[in-house]
Amino acid sequence: MILPSQKAMVPFVSVENMMRLVHARGLETMICELVDFIEADFRRWPDFDKTPRVASHSDIGVIELMPTSDGAHYGFKYVNGHPSNTKTGLQTVTAFGLFADVQTGYPILLTEMTLLTALRTAAMSVLAGKLLAPKNAKTMAMIGNGAQSEFQCIAFKAVCGIETIRLYDVDSAATRKCAANLAASGLTVVMCDSAEEAVEGAQIVTTCTADKQYATILTDNMIGSGIHINAIGGDCPGKTELHRDILLRSDIFVEYPPQTRIEGEIQQLEADHPVTELWQVILGQQNGRTDDKQITLFDSVGFAIEDFSALRYIHQAVQGTNFCEMLDMLADPDDPRDLFGMLERARSAQAA
Amino acid sequence: MILPSQKAMVPFVSVENMMRLVHARGLETMICELVDFIEADFRRWPDFDKTPRVASHSDIGVIELMPTSDGAHYGFKYVNGHPSNTKTGLQTVTAFGLFADVQTGYPILLTEMTLLTALRTAAMSVLAGKLLAPKNAKTMAMIGNGAQSEFQCIAFKAVCGIETIRLYDVDSAATRKCAANLAASGLTVVMCDSAEEAVEGAQIVTTCTADKQYATILTDNMIGSGIHINAIGGDCPGKTELHRDILLRSDIFVEYPPQTRIEGEIQQLEADHPVTELWQVILGQQNGRTDDKQITLFDSVGFAIEDFSALRYIHQAVQGTNFCEMLDMLADPDDPRDLFGMLERARSAQAA
Repeated sequence: MILPSQKAMVPFVSVENMMRLVHARGLETMICELVDFIEADFRRWPDFDKTPRVASHSDIGVIELMPTSDGAHYGFKYVNGHPSNTKTGLQTVTAFGLFADVQTGYPILLTEMTLLTALRTAAMSVLAGKLLAPKNAKTMAMIGNGAQSEFQCIAFKAVCGIETIRLYDVDSAATRKCAANLAASGLTVVMCDSAEEAVEGAQIVTTCTADKQYATILTDNMIGSGIHINAIGGDCPGKTELHRDILLRSDIFVEYPPQTRIEGEIQQLEADHPVTELWQVILGQQNGRTDDKQITLFDSVGFAIEDFSALRYIHQAVQGTNFCEMLDMLADPDDPRDLFGMLERARSAQAA
Repeated sequence: MILPSQKAMVPFVSVENMMRLVHARGLETMICELVDFIEADFRRWPDFDKTPRVASHSDIGVIELMPTSDGAHYGFKYVNGHPSNTKTGLQTVTAFGLFADVQTGYPILLTEMTLLTALRTAAMSVLAGKLLAPKNAKTMAMIGNGAQSEFQCIAFKAVCGIETIRLYDVDSAATRKCAANLAASGLTVVMCDSAEEAVEGAQIVTTCTADKQYATILTDNMIGSGIHINAIGGDCPGKTELHRDILLRSDIFVEYPPQTRIEGEIQQLEADHPVTELWQVILGQQNGRTDDKQITLFDSVGFAIEDFSALRYIHQAVQGTNFCEMLDMLADPDDPRDLFGMLERARSAQAA
């Protein structure tokens, strides 16, 4: 066989290698590094394409492509959302991503993004948390104890100084799973029997539940003054977690308003309800939290630029390492116009 | 290390394996099989999503995602177009594709598509040729002798009975390359010094040039009555190959009017200029060629359903064979909600 040239090869990070990378760098370190990459990209927010995600809906789920570009690089994520998958032992959400060079159009990284999305989502939450959570927050309620929950807890410990986590899930097995996974984390973990109990004494409330329906995980009476709410689970049309009255009492921060108004908690509000864009807070163009009594809400839906930052990070992190393998993904004939000749010469080489 | 489960694995067809597959099945056979798959999918045209392609333009090229779904499967192609790439020894166009199960959202095939796109483009051209070319066409002019040209010639031989090819390219080296590649094909090959000379005596004229600009590869006087024009190169805004007067004398057939009116030759015409959709000709709802004097024009731009057909074909062709390798692309924890636990257990396994 003829060995493909280097130009034909695309570095690929498998799930196995992504896990090796996380262990090599350390989970907390990697989340902190992702925070830095996302923050750097949010600082140059106007440089990015804001193409809406391209969704293909079916009765039981959705497949989405989330592309963006900063003019030098192009990235997209493939992600599905199929809540009923868990019944057959499959993941609700799986994802992979691709990073490419805009100058040539050539892919330069293919990577699993199921794990990576969990990390970047946690990184995004704590980036907002740094700006919005009350000073000296020590306790977080974690409502919804599924696949994302441990990453959130560890990120808030690493970046925002959270010491105690109060867990609640409608399924107590999920809570026990989360508590067991956090046993060695250094966090004090309290398992609660209700969402009301979980929010007691918490300065930060993170909601991350998965039902594709209008839900009311938090009611108005549960949220006192000064709380920061990190709302992750309300992320598509028809899927919300918070009672509308909470939204009306909160200062609301979002990634990208045109997307969040369709997918986020604020789909419950008027289309012109005031919201603040997080990138402007990062740049100091808008205020984050301004007083201790204020209720702040990060209405998080996940935006393509965060995936771009994660791809940019992984591309840099795996370069020159054995955390990736090379995939023969691009045809690369000696003469670019001679694709046919490449095919013919391979025939002779394969026969030999 | 813990071996990933089968659910985590996605079959991947490398360039090397795609070439092996072509050689194993035979190029002409594979083109004929692709014609059948495309024709079958065009027959159920209304079943498909017609999402417009999502393009990211830069000064020197474009990166596009072309998704579609028939409700059971979902496919998309990543493709770039960078005409200046050839100056640095890179391909103008590279592509890869993904096929997924709509029920679960899980990818079930990742494949190179640079070669595969060349094959499906040739297959699409001859599918149109079967319906539109004059009976007993024996001679084809092939104008533009780049990477797609040999595949076109061999497809028209295999499916439409073409015996003689008349080659022309502004770059005579491209013509010599094409002629050399076709030497063993069984076709009679004539190298011509001009487009005018190439079209002499041809019943079919295929244009496939690459400049991203309004060009006039064919002028009105070059096209006599009864000719079928297979116009491939005019496939994005600002890129056309035919003089407008030819269009006005032709019956024009297209894949998907909303896309072709933006990208095809007919971008030169009024937005309501009559065109016929090829899928309706295949179903017998519209006429193809009706008389010997008619000039027919297939204004081909390439549509996502053709890539879907190609993905569907490859998915079927490689199943249970060694023409693919398995990629560990999807995280698959034992308990779908326990992504973190999977990561932790991998740490112990990797350390062991």
